[in-house]
Formats: sequence, C-alpha cells, structure tokens
Amino acid sequence: MSADTRGRILGSAMELFATKGYAQTSIDDVLRRSDAKPGSLYHFFPGKEDLLIAVLEAHRAGIDALLFQPAWIGFDDPIERVFALMARYRMLIVASDCEYGCPIGSLALEMHKARKSVRERISANFAAWTDAVHRCYLQAADRFESGTNLRELAEFTLTTMEGGVMQSRTFRDVSYFDRSVKQLRQYVQALMKTPSRRVAAPKKRVGGSKAHPPGA
Amino acid sequence: MSADTRGRILGSAMELFATKGYAQTSIDDVLRRSDAKPGSLYHFFPGKEDLLIAVLEAHRAGIDALLFQPAWIGFDDPIERVFALMARYRMLIVASDCEYGCPIGSLALEMHKARKSVRERISANFAAWTDAVHRCYLQAADRFESGTNLRELAEFTLTTMEGGVMQSRTFRDVSYFDRSVKQLRQYVQALMKTPSRRVAAPKKRVGGSKAHPPGA
Repeated sequence: MSADTRGRILGSAMELFATKGYAQTSIDDVLRRSDAKPGSLYHFFPGKEDLLIAVLEAHRAGIDALLFQPAWIGFDDPIERVFALMARYRMLIVASDCEYGCPIGSLALEMHKARKSVRERISANFAAWTDAVHRCYLQAADRFESGTNLRELAEFTLTTMEGGVMQSRTFRDVSYFDRSVKQLRQYVQALMKTPSRRVAAPKKRVGGSKAHPPGA
Repeated sequence: MSADTRGRILGSAMELFATKGYAQTSIDDVLRRSDAKPGSLYHFFPGKEDLLIAVLEAHRAGIDALLFQPAWIGFDDPIERVFALMARYRMLIVASDCEYGCPIGSLALEMHKARKSVRERISANFAAWTDAVHRCYLQAADRFESGTNLRELAEFTLTTMEGGVMQSRTFRDVSYFDRSVKQLRQYVQALMKTPSRRVAAPKKRVGGSKAHPPGA
C-alpha cells in the first residue's frame, strides 16, 4: 500500500485513458499495466471514477513541470513561449504517428454525461492552460494594440490547439495542426501594433530573445 | 426488414452515439431505442462498427440538407453564412444546456485506435464541412487581401468550431464558444482589405444582404 504503488497505478491509468480512452479502459487493464494487486487499487481508488478524478488532478498538478517548463526551455520571449507550447504538441503528434490526442480534450468529449466532480477537474485543467498562456500574452501586452482582449486570445489559443490536434489525428497528418497554428500566428500578428507584414518570421519579431533552444 | 426499419435503427444509433458516445452505447441500447428486433439489426448491421460506419455515412450524406441549408436560410452573404453556421452550433449548445458536442468531433477523439474505414469516414465529414466553408470564403474572395489562403481559413474555421464547442461543453457555458467565434470574426476582418475597425458589426460589412433571417 505504498505511495509508490499508488503512483504506479495512477501513471498506468493516465497512459491508458490517454491512449485507449476512459470507457475502453478496464480496471483489469490498469491492474495488468501497473502490476498491482486488486486490493491495492481498490484501497487507493474505490471506483473507476475515483481513478479518473485522480488522473485529472495529476494532470493539473503536473501541468507546469511536465508541460510548460519543458516546452519553454530556451524561450524567453513570451509570444514565442506560446508558440513553443504549440511546438510541444506538434512533437507529441509526430512522435505518435499522428495518433496523439490531448488527454484532457479527449476526456472532455468522451465524458458525455460526466458528473460535476469530473467536469470541474477537466475545467481546472483547461483553466490552468489558459491562465499560463494568458500570462505570456500579458507579459507582451505593450506589443498589442490597446483594447486587445488577451484573456480571450488565450482561450482562442486553447481552441486552436484542441481543434488542430483533433484534425491532425483524424487525418493522420500533422500539417492540419501546422496550418491552424499558422493561422493563429497570423492573427496574433494582426493584433499587434504596426504589423508590417501578415506573416512575419519569428526572428524578425522577437529581437534579442532566443527563437530556438540552444543546442536544439 | 424494411428500409424503414433500417432508418429507425440508424437514427437511434446516431442519437445514442452523439449523446452517450460510441463505447458507452450498447447494441441493446440501440434495439431498445429503435424498437427493432435483434435479427433486423444484425441483418442490416452485422457488427457495431458497421453501424458506426453507416452513422458516419448518414452524417456525411445529410450535411447539406440537415446542417448547411437550415443554417443559411435568410443569409445570402457568403461571410455571414459562415457565421450563421456558427450560430447554428450556438443554438444546439444552448438547446442542450451546454451538453452539446459535435457528433463527428466527439467520435474523432473517442476513436483512439480507429480502423482506417472509420477514420476515413470521420475525415470525409470534416472535409465536407471544410469544403462548404471554403466555398463561402471563395465567393467573397475579392474582399480578402490578395494572397490570403482561404482553404487554410476554412480549416481554421472548423478548428474554431470544434475547440469552442469543447470548451463550452466542459465549462457548461456558451460564452466560451461565443468568444472563440468573436476571435475568428476579428481574424476574418483583419484578413480583409482596408479593415476600418477590428470589430465591425456584421451589418456594416455585408451591405445589401440580410444579416438576420426574415421573421427571426
């Protein structure tokens, strides 16, 4: 009944829910993958939904260390951080042969009649993602036209990621994701002061900051 | 074994897959909802996946009559047609107390290891949607800055719809969808020639066409 066992069960469930979906994952699948005994699993997670809630809380707790921080290594410019985050998703799409689905987005659509406790934890993940992107835009606030709603832009960035991931996965073609991100980039440019060109190369705009991680 | 029975089974499956999800819908659910006999169901659809493929083909076959045509009643301006389509989704979101999920998008994310035959039919639905929106933008091509990639804009419009629906459903709040659509509207404006303002009221831009359906 160690914390290690709990972590192993949780990690297995995270992986299975992300790759097979919640409904398609059985408790037996989790037991097999984690090499845990039924008694241990039921001790920590009395029901499958308790496991789901713990998975969603783990995603939320790890969003900074597991998603943002690795994505932002070598990127100081706040706008480039937003697109470095998108590049992180691109990497996950390519590494999975375009089978990647955002684990939170997939659960959000799979949970048709989700209980409030589940929905609130999916919402918390979306909100944490949007908050972080919003902070990036706020750090570059002086580059946007006055009156630009940066919170809405952050929500729209999540919209772009989720819609782009969905299409790249369906068509098994990362270029669908790329084109959505390109449209977002053009929109961000259009919202900035004195946009000289519609599509500017990142380097042109981020003067001084590193557009690529060192050694990458 | 009439075509009527087949249609009743198919309609029930469409509704169940959309509201409960594919994995959570059992053949028994479909039999109960359609009041059909097991023999009839298996005669038309030997397996559950055959039923899924038929559902996806029915969505594809009905996209014009059931989605675009009703959305576009009273809208002649091609750009307003795009946003009238978005308004149609808004209506579905509100009518379902924000439980609405795009049936195709939900299946796209639920089908983690979907067979090629299923994925191809989900793709065909996305492609038909994008094609129709692309045609709208092409009809207004002279209003866009030269060099604007209208195909990519149509794909980005699907991205916006899917990402917006996902968030409004998760937060059970249509304003998430509204804000994504507002951002898309601002982007479309920015891509047009001589944008006078970032956020223009529809009426200002569509000179001559009806911004609202008659009697609506």
